[in-house]
Formats: sequence, structure tokens, C-alpha cells
Amino acid sequence: MIVALAGGVGGAKMAQGLQAALPPGALTTVVNTADDFELYGLRICPDLDTVMYTLAGIADPVHGWGVAGDTRNTLDAIGRYGADPWFLLGDQDFATHILRTERLRAGRTLSAVTGELASALGVPGPIVPMTDDRVATLIDTPAGRLEFQEYFVARRQSDDVLGVVFDGMDAARAHPEALAAIRAAEAIVIAPSNPIVSVGPILATPGMRAALDEADAPIVAVSPIVGGRALKGPAAQMLATLGHDVSALGVARLYADLVAGIVIDVVDDDLMAAIEQVGLRVLVTETVMGGGQDRRRLASEVLDFARSLAAQPVAM
Amino acid sequence: MIVALAGGVGGAKMAQGLQAALPPGALTTVVNTADDFELYGLRICPDLDTVMYTLAGIADPVHGWGVAGDTRNTLDAIGRYGADPWFLLGDQDFATHILRTERLRAGRTLSAVTGELASALGVPGPIVPMTDDRVATLIDTPAGRLEFQEYFVARRQSDDVLGVVFDGMDAARAHPEALAAIRAAEAIVIAPSNPIVSVGPILATPGMRAALDEADAPIVAVSPIVGGRALKGPAAQMLATLGHDVSALGVARLYADLVAGIVIDVVDDDLMAAIEQVGLRVLVTETVMGGGQDRRRLASEVLDFARSLAAQPVAM
Repeated sequence: MIVALAGGVGGAKMAQGLQAALPPGALTTVVNTADDFELYGLRICPDLDTVMYTLAGIADPVHGWGVAGDTRNTLDAIGRYGADPWFLLGDQDFATHILRTERLRAGRTLSAVTGELASALGVPGPIVPMTDDRVATLIDTPAGRLEFQEYFVARRQSDDVLGVVFDGMDAARAHPEALAAIRAAEAIVIAPSNPIVSVGPILATPGMRAALDEADAPIVAVSPIVGGRALKGPAAQMLATLGHDVSALGVARLYADLVAGIVIDVVDDDLMAAIEQVGLRVLVTETVMGGGQDRRRLASEVLDFARSLAAQPVAM
Repeated sequence: MIVALAGGVGGAKMAQGLQAALPPGALTTVVNTADDFELYGLRICPDLDTVMYTLAGIADPVHGWGVAGDTRNTLDAIGRYGADPWFLLGDQDFATHILRTERLRAGRTLSAVTGELASALGVPGPIVPMTDDRVATLIDTPAGRLEFQEYFVARRQSDDVLGVVFDGMDAARAHPEALAAIRAAEAIVIAPSNPIVSVGPILATPGMRAALDEADAPIVAVSPIVGGRALKGPAAQMLATLGHDVSALGVARLYADLVAGIVIDVVDDDLMAAIEQVGLRVLVTETVMGGGQDRRRLASEVLDFARSLAAQPVAM
């Protein structure tokens, strides 16, 4: 059993590679839900859906989010009614949000609903929300405190990030299925997702960090920063304004007391020695994932790396 | 000011003709809401939407319901998740249901939401739900009591109708805007909608019948039965199993104590004398509405007929 901790597009690609490299059902993907929000009365869970669509093989190959070949007729009609169609939702995507919202309102948990939807799409292993409780990432900027999707989508990540708050986190509890998967895992992979707003909330969910710290399995992270830039999204600017090094070394430092090893890209080869100085083993390989072959190859290397760390524990 | 009482497709066509024949805003359409139901957690109002789409000029010209050229990608995706896509909803149509449901859940009334949506689509006159309260038509059949859409759509009107119940009607109140429009009307037109399950609930809404009886304006009905058959839907079988004559005469008898006149089709010319015997004036004309020209022509004739009845009250 392998556990991946994942945010959106980068996390989904990593999870897809792991799914392809493992026997069916052997991967449990624990997903950030702090980006979730309500729109038009529907519960939108961007990371859960990106992971689900990707693991189901129906994700849009260009954007990485949404369903391949989806249309926007519902959203266009919403615009015709005068509502602002600022968040791009496809017609097939709306089906996900409609059914999820219906079932949540009927009293089901997010994890139960996610399991049903993912099963119907043929995803072989569990996709587990980090928590069934509501948590909301808020972004402090010079323009004030913003809801995450306002910062991320509506304002196109143009604000400096001065701080990040996970509203509701104190009252949240890590999902028991996530904790059980972590305890039973052979290896745990932190996907190349944004360390601050994608992996950050997962690690901050009460109960999660203790389970990870107590896990027998080696934990490895894949750096989302390659050559000093984020593969996708605002991770680079966010790390910078929050005072972190915008590099694989900066990521290594963020995860240093949690992981045994980190996977960095060949272009960051020169950071290897410095990362080893913070106590982590390093795998240097091609980490920029294109299609399925790439993802599977990286996943196999990451798994081999993790297994090698289990065999030879790092002295820390 | 003119008031139309309308169900779905037939009512919408009549209302569109009246709208075309009248100055902008002069038509108030009072619509049946007893067919409304919840599907996938969304409030669906089939008759309100058919009237709204038709008056906005965007209704599907073939079916009469739904939006012209609409796609079904959301519904297909709902089917992929294993939910039964038994009720045909288009992608643009989903926008209506999503926004309506959001606003109703926020505490808005159905009439307020309908007004907003219809305005956004450019409908010039008020579309008023018969009530803001929830009423549900239930159909008694040999197979038991069925919800209306189960009888109407899922089971394709194949059950004999032994009785009709408007659940919740006792507690409902006719919409004040409908009552005010009826009081102020120059003429009131009962559209060629199903007398039992479309016009029936409107007339049964507490407060509605009294307002109609006290109205100064002449009330005229357009027969939905032409040549012994319903133009659309199950009105004929329903009238038959409920013991009514399946003819324009049967319709005239149903409305005899409410209307001053009835409009029947030229093919029913031979029923004119019998209908006059029940005390109604009769206009014989082409009542089968095709496109917009037809609808406007019929509407003009219906309005002239109603005005003639106002000038020469029928002795009853």
C-alpha cells in the first residue's frame, strides 16, 4: 500500500503515475480540501475533482483540470442570467458538483460521496479528502484577506501573499481512512504540489502530522520547484513573499523534519549537496511530467527511492 | 392588462401569442407550479421554465420545452455516475435550475427568482407562479399514487388516471401578484393547457377562484381538446378516466361556471350549439398553433372575442 498526499494538477499527475506503477487499488490518494468552496449553491472541490478525473483518465490533457472535451453551455447560460461566470466549470464537471451537493445535503460525508463518484468513474484506489470537515484557505495580501479561489482564480494570483490561514482547521479532524492508510503504508509520497496551500493544509489537519511522524514507511517528497520556478501555479511567488528559498532546497527545508528524502529535477543537480546538508537523501531525475509514460516512469523511480530509504534508514 | 393562466407547452404558446399581440409588459402569465419537483437536489419547475423560455424566444421549437439547440452533456455525465437520467434536462436548462435552487435556498421566493431569471432573458411581462408555496400534483392510478413527473415522464402517461390530488394545496395561498393582475385585467385567458393537471391546480389554489369569480374582466378558455384528442399530453385519457367528455364540449362543461366564452377549433364546429346550451359563448377558429404567426393570430382573435364578451355580457 502506497499513500500519496496531493493537491491539484501536479498531485494528480503524480498520483496517476503511482496508480499506473502499482497493482489496482494499492494507491490511496489523500487530497487537499482547503480550496473547496461554494459556487451557485454547489460544493466545488477543485483538488478532489482534478485527482478524480486524472485517476479516471478523463482529465483535460491541456489544462490538467476539468474533463477532456468538456463544453461550457451551462456556464454560458449562467452568464446569460447575469451571474458572473468567473470560475470555469464544464458541463460534465457540473454533473460532479450537482450530485456531490445533493448527497452532501442529504447528510452524506464528503469522503463517502467522493468514493461513490470515483468508483463510478472506475478509479481503482481510494481518493480520500484530508478531512470531512470544512476548512477554508484564506490568503492575506496587501489588498486584505481573500478567499482562496478569489486569490487564485478571480485575481489570477496577482496579489503578494503575506500570510495563509486555514480557517476551521482547529475543529477539523484528519480523515480516519487517511490515517489508517498512512499507518499501513509501505511508502508515502508527497506529490509535487504547492507546499504552502496544497500540501500545507493536509499536513496541518489535526491528527495528520502525528500519523506521518509515527509512520513506519519512508516519506519522500517530489519538489514542485524546478530550476527556481513552480511547474504550475503561484508556489514560487508564495514561497518568496513568505520568506522561503524559491528552490528545491527551499522545499527540502520546508519538509526537512518530515521526509526522509526528496526528489529533485536534473536541472537542480547543483542543489543536491546543500539538500543533503539538511539531512535528506536526494534522488535527482527528470521530474517534469508530460504524459502517462512520464508519470509512470517518475512514479516508479520515486517508489524505488522510497523503498531504498526504508531499507537504509537515514540517520537524523 | 391581460392575464393568461397557463400550464406548459400549450400555455406557453398561447402566452407567446398574447405577448406578441399586446404592448410590452401588458401580459401577466400565471403559471402552474404543481408539477414542480426536486431532481439531483435542484428545484425543477417545468411549466414556469417552458413559459419563460417560450416568452424569451429561446424555447426548443420542436419539443416546445427546453432551450433551442441545447446539449445534454451534464445529464450524460450524471448518467455516467450511475444516477438515472430519466428526466431530460439540457445544459442551458441546468443553469436555470442551479441558479433558482441557489436563490431559493438563500430564502428568496419562487416568484422573485422567476422574475429575475425571466427579466435577464428579456421577457417583457410578469411570469407569476400560481403560488410561492409548495404544491405537488399526485396521480392515483391502478399502480398506486404516483408523483406527477413519475406518471408523466418516467411512466410516459401509460397509467389510467383514477384521481388527482394537489398535495399541500390547503396550506397554499394564491400569489398576490396573480390576484392583483386578475382584479386589474381587461381580459383573462385560460390557455389550451390540460384542464385537470395544468389549469386545475391554478384554479384550486386558495384565493384564485374567488378572484376570478369577482373579476370584472371576461374570462375565456381555449379548448385543449381538438377533434376529440389532446393537442399534446395525456389530457384526453385523463378526461376519459375521470368521467368527462373527451371533447371541446367536455372542456366547456368543466369551465362552464367560470368562463363567459370558449374558443374551439373549426373541426369541432358541430359542438357549438351544445356548448352554447351550457351557457357559453363560442368562438370557432383555427386553434392549432404552429409558429409565431399562428400564435399571434389566435391570440388576437381570442382577445377580440373576450372584448366582445365584455361589451355584451352573457346572461347566465
